[in-house]
Amino acid sequence: MNSFTFHNPTRIEFGADKERQIGLHLAEHGVRSVLLCFGSERIKRDGLFDTVRQSLAEHDIPFVECGGIVSNPVLSKVREGVALARAHQVGAVLAVGGGSVLDSAKAIAAAARHDGEVWDLFTGQAPVQSALPVFAVLTLAATGSEMNSGAVVTNEVTKEKFAIQSPHLFPRVSVVNPALMQTVSRDYLVYSAADIIAHSIEGYFTATVQPAFQSRLVEAVIQTVIETTETLLEHPADLDARAQFAWASTQALNGLTYAGTAGFSYPNHMIEHALSALFNVPHGAGLSVVMPAWMKWYHGRNPAQFTRFARQIFGKDTPEQGIAALEAWFDRIGTPTRLSQLGITAADLPALLDNLEGNARWFGLAETYPRAVLATLLEGAL
Amino acid sequence: MNSFTFHNPTRIEFGADKERQIGLHLAEHGVRSVLLCFGSERIKRDGLFDTVRQSLAEHDIPFVECGGIVSNPVLSKVREGVALARAHQVGAVLAVGGGSVLDSAKAIAAAARHDGEVWDLFTGQAPVQSALPVFAVLTLAATGSEMNSGAVVTNEVTKEKFAIQSPHLFPRVSVVNPALMQTVSRDYLVYSAADIIAHSIEGYFTATVQPAFQSRLVEAVIQTVIETTETLLEHPADLDARAQFAWASTQALNGLTYAGTAGFSYPNHMIEHALSALFNVPHGAGLSVVMPAWMKWYHGRNPAQFTRFARQIFGKDTPEQGIAALEAWFDRIGTPTRLSQLGITAADLPALLDNLEGNARWFGLAETYPRAVLATLLEGAL
Repeated sequence: MNSFTFHNPTRIEFGADKERQIGLHLAEHGVRSVLLCFGSERIKRDGLFDTVRQSLAEHDIPFVECGGIVSNPVLSKVREGVALARAHQVGAVLAVGGGSVLDSAKAIAAAARHDGEVWDLFTGQAPVQSALPVFAVLTLAATGSEMNSGAVVTNEVTKEKFAIQSPHLFPRVSVVNPALMQTVSRDYLVYSAADIIAHSIEGYFTATVQPAFQSRLVEAVIQTVIETTETLLEHPADLDARAQFAWASTQALNGLTYAGTAGFSYPNHMIEHALSALFNVPHGAGLSVVMPAWMKWYHGRNPAQFTRFARQIFGKDTPEQGIAALEAWFDRIGTPTRLSQLGITAADLPALLDNLEGNARWFGLAETYPRAVLATLLEGAL
Repeated sequence: MNSFTFHNPTRIEFGADKERQIGLHLAEHGVRSVLLCFGSERIKRDGLFDTVRQSLAEHDIPFVECGGIVSNPVLSKVREGVALARAHQVGAVLAVGGGSVLDSAKAIAAAARHDGEVWDLFTGQAPVQSALPVFAVLTLAATGSEMNSGAVVTNEVTKEKFAIQSPHLFPRVSVVNPALMQTVSRDYLVYSAADIIAHSIEGYFTATVQPAFQSRLVEAVIQTVIETTETLLEHPADLDARAQFAWASTQALNGLTYAGTAGFSYPNHMIEHALSALFNVPHGAGLSVVMPAWMKWYHGRNPAQFTRFARQIFGKDTPEQGIAALEAWFDRIGTPTRLSQLGITAADLPALLDNLEGNARWFGLAETYPRAVLATLLEGAL
């Protein structure tokens, strides 16, 4: 087990009606005006927008709207948010939405306090030295952004999907009310399940130091995601399953399962980021295609852990059987496992590989994943 | 799954030599003088005291010593610490030791900012409204105090062992260096294992709302404690086992396993507190006696969870077999399972029951655990 620092200061307010107190949380942090980030206009139709507006009004906190954030959020929108934040001199950013809205809000919060080019924060040319405080009301459990310090944004000009990470970007308060997730579509539920599993297995399989305790935490997350996804597909109104799904999602990427591990990498995310940057596929759908393909290529490097995965998660005996069981489970719940299901064909591979080479450099994985390896891997997923 | 707030702001600095930075952490929090709490003089012989002193000196932080804190820490020592803290107007309290030292440090930190009688903070007659910031260098993993907001102290006049809890009492920074725990005695290792398991099972068995995800987290802790204890008994120098043991201990009582559960109680701690208040037995040794006795009496109220425990932890089929397996494991590692092993006989039961009735009221469990029930339970443990 390696040395580490664990410090996750985010306050999670979990459960029914917690969004009604969001104004109070901002007020307690001394916020006097806020940039309100959201995605589609749906939150205006379903009442959530009004609930948040009323809570802010109760605490005399004016807000500026920054709506229209799309999934696989884009840099141009971040720039728009920064301009609004500066023009109105807001004291904080409040995200009301899923991971894309949260990540955009975090990027805006960091960029609003950064004088240079925003994308420099993502390429690593400039560090995040400060940020407006971030608050969130989560409506989709998948990315774990509500309790971590990272954000992923796509530069639609350069077609790069990169991340920033900074302790300044932990949300101060995140509301996680499973009832707000009851209307998530069937598709986005299963894509989210794939995303959470991807967050869990990246370190689990690739870490050179992976203590059994951390593996057990990861398995607790995956078992819960599998179990609750199946329940929700049959009974979408099952609030308890929705709640456990959401809390497992938060735990998958808040630093806990990675504490004490070392040498891990994020190859599945590295590959998927090229898919969504070029073809704008839903992140989770891309991941459920990438994971089985990557696992088939990789498992020989860590047979003990793949055997453990097969046994603990699926009651199988061999790495191959465990991987097949995961792929079959993705098929069963209806998240893609082939590039063709995403409309991507062999003709697209050269462009994909070009983009991937850039990602591999950004992720520091260019040596392990040269173009030939990536080609083999992707051809296996056609 | 119930609503909850999860907010654990403690920064954990885990790993080799982290205690060398303790002065830096205090300085970063603006601390200019500190009360240094510790137990025996051993830390002066083994070099830890010097390491801490040097780190404080590097950051020009003078300290006042408050040594001699004993296990099952006592109120008189807390009063002594408060007097020192006030006389020297220290800005923080630094605990260097195990759970007893941490709990005393927390009590001193709260009481130093409380004008009335200290014990009122424990009986609930006065709330903890403020506290000096608390820092810690942990030398024994067992109580979880390094990452939670509670503290337990014995009033040696009234023979009451009660707790305080307040968000003000989360340590700002806790150093957890497994290497500092390499010299823990065999006895204290197994008592600590029992303590961690007790923290894990109280909610696991008694909660009226206990989602599967939370049960899985608890099982991850217990499996890890069992596995690493066995490794450490055979190979006390195994630093990786020591590290996983320590991190599992921290996770057992930092709020994570309880998030979303409801209706739980702490009957094993309620009973044990009477044992250590009256007979000064090591807390973990008391708990390993109480747990099997309590489980035998209680399991019929929650057969599904006891069956789950038997299967997940010991690969057994029935509640009775699971309980027997835990008791046998305690016997095997050498932590007591009978009151007689603690020197407590039938003649002591009346006094024990008198004390327990007070505890039951304090724990809010007087209805579930009337004297007759407690008598049955303890007679089963003679």
